[in-house]
Amino acid sequence: MRLSFSEYRFARSSRWLLAACLCLFVQAALAAADPLPAWSDGASKRAIIAFVQQVTTPESPAFVAADERIAVFDNDGTLWTEKPAYFQLLFAIDRIRELAPQHPEWKTTQPFKAVLDNDMDALADSGEKGLIQLVMASHAGMTTTEFEQIVLAWLKVARHPRFKQPYTELVYQPMLELLNHLRANGFKTFIVSGGGIEFMRPWTQAVYGIPPEQVVGSSIKVKYELHDGEPVLARLPEVDFIDDKAGKPVGIHKFIGRRPLAAFGNSDGDLQMLQWTAAGEGRHFMLLVHHTDAKREYAYDRKSHVGKLDKALDEAGRRGWTVVDMQRDWKVIYPFEER
Amino acid sequence: MRLSFSEYRFARSSRWLLAACLCLFVQAALAAADPLPAWSDGASKRAIIAFVQQVTTPESPAFVAADERIAVFDNDGTLWTEKPAYFQLLFAIDRIRELAPQHPEWKTTQPFKAVLDNDMDALADSGEKGLIQLVMASHAGMTTTEFEQIVLAWLKVARHPRFKQPYTELVYQPMLELLNHLRANGFKTFIVSGGGIEFMRPWTQAVYGIPPEQVVGSSIKVKYELHDGEPVLARLPEVDFIDDKAGKPVGIHKFIGRRPLAAFGNSDGDLQMLQWTAAGEGRHFMLLVHHTDAKREYAYDRKSHVGKLDKALDEAGRRGWTVVDMQRDWKVIYPFEER
Repeated sequence: MRLSFSEYRFARSSRWLLAACLCLFVQAALAAADPLPAWSDGASKRAIIAFVQQVTTPESPAFVAADERIAVFDNDGTLWTEKPAYFQLLFAIDRIRELAPQHPEWKTTQPFKAVLDNDMDALADSGEKGLIQLVMASHAGMTTTEFEQIVLAWLKVARHPRFKQPYTELVYQPMLELLNHLRANGFKTFIVSGGGIEFMRPWTQAVYGIPPEQVVGSSIKVKYELHDGEPVLARLPEVDFIDDKAGKPVGIHKFIGRRPLAAFGNSDGDLQMLQWTAAGEGRHFMLLVHHTDAKREYAYDRKSHVGKLDKALDEAGRRGWTVVDMQRDWKVIYPFEER
Repeated sequence: MRLSFSEYRFARSSRWLLAACLCLFVQAALAAADPLPAWSDGASKRAIIAFVQQVTTPESPAFVAADERIAVFDNDGTLWTEKPAYFQLLFAIDRIRELAPQHPEWKTTQPFKAVLDNDMDALADSGEKGLIQLVMASHAGMTTTEFEQIVLAWLKVARHPRFKQPYTELVYQPMLELLNHLRANGFKTFIVSGGGIEFMRPWTQAVYGIPPEQVVGSSIKVKYELHDGEPVLARLPEVDFIDDKAGKPVGIHKFIGRRPLAAFGNSDGDLQMLQWTAAGEGRHFMLLVHHTDAKREYAYDRKSHVGKLDKALDEAGRRGWTVVDMQRDWKVIYPFEER
């Protein structure tokens, strides 16, 4: 039997079509089976999958009851981007500029002058003391309900200087998948961040699927008051708790009250949290995100001021903790890349 | 037809048997339908059932999404007994006696002398300052892991002076049912207690079904340290947070980060927590347990030093909050009564 040219073309194209369909089908099936599609196949992804399998398989010697499956995540640099500066500092700067007309004295007082002059060197010179002054001036002096509205209003209009996206879009797609994978396996996921607890709580449920009561962070003091008979919590210009470095295990103990099974960070500020997690009995999982991708995100580690990763990187190497090489391990960085 | 005597007896007894069976069946069916069997039928029980129905029925104007259903419970006097003294104070006293051989100076120093002499008047005279000294001497100076073991070991052997039961048996059966009823309806249940957070967390899951991360309480400071290279959290003799009175809304905001939908307390120490809950938008539920049963538990209110219920009772009356009359509303007080 001979085929006419058109018959031949049909047969040939349908063969390709069939092959293409099959291929798509297999890809779809693989994707359905793969809880971490934005992760490249490699040691990091395999370590995560293996750990989750080990602690959730009842026959496994590493099995852990569901209610003990606590996973803690740093936020800045681990769940969302922290460059060119912590997003909360960018919020504070915007707010200082907004409030400046009511504070003529700021024109001549540091660190406010630096903010108003857009003089980042002078701002850096003001150090931690200056930073705390900025936070107090921008984060205190209102009720908790008012502050929540201020944060949400800022997130609606503010855009990242490089990516021109809302800050809540600059979250890592691979980490969103990881959060979902852990929760699908009975884990309770917590944020344990050096950032302000009240800066995060208004949006973590929508962005990460993490409810306010599972967010641990730094805080200023609040005070219960009656304003015209109406109870309010007034935000005071006084540090309550710094949830960073050795403060992270303290924060975990204070807010969660038990040791995590898994901990995820990206900087030396997370080292003690990972050490505390690792010191628990039985199998635990520790992971650091190493920012190696200047093209798609940022590349920084040992010499960086924000998100410095030095001692923790060495300790991860010595102790066999998982270190994610962002460039190699992540196929996608941000959710908007896929849209 | 006439029955012989034995036939008559059989017929009569089987009729009674049938009636008894029917009665048991009806009771069982009622119990299955009743989530609060230890509660007498009355205004308190009806108010609870109605509130839960209103906020969980999607068609109801008062409907609240499941993840917003936060219920907060005071512990001392609300979930378990607080007489003859807060159980945590009895723990501190036992511990001071245990540690006394290592502290010969306590024989002549207040408030320790009062504890060792069993002189409750002198102890009361030492006031809040004395109480804090007792807490620091008995609750600090060890790691968090060690303290947890000390609490659990004490609970195993200590017995209530009147009821001769372990303290964890002196929990209110009606409140256990209420906790279960709320959780069965999608509520997340939290403890918000003036008591020590680390004194409660080791046993709240087993006793109340409340996990450690849903326990809010008073705390002393802890510090992250390396002991022979092993990370520990050392308990310091320094107050961190007092979760009582105006501190309760602060604790709720700090640890939970959103306003409760329902709040349960028993004393003036819970007033601000109930006010804060009531001030939320929409339907909220506030309840006070009034200790009116000297025979089965204790009777106390306006004049009591521990668990004083005065201003909160007046405000509950004015605002229509539910006030449980323990004697009238609770058929059973403790779970062991039913065994």
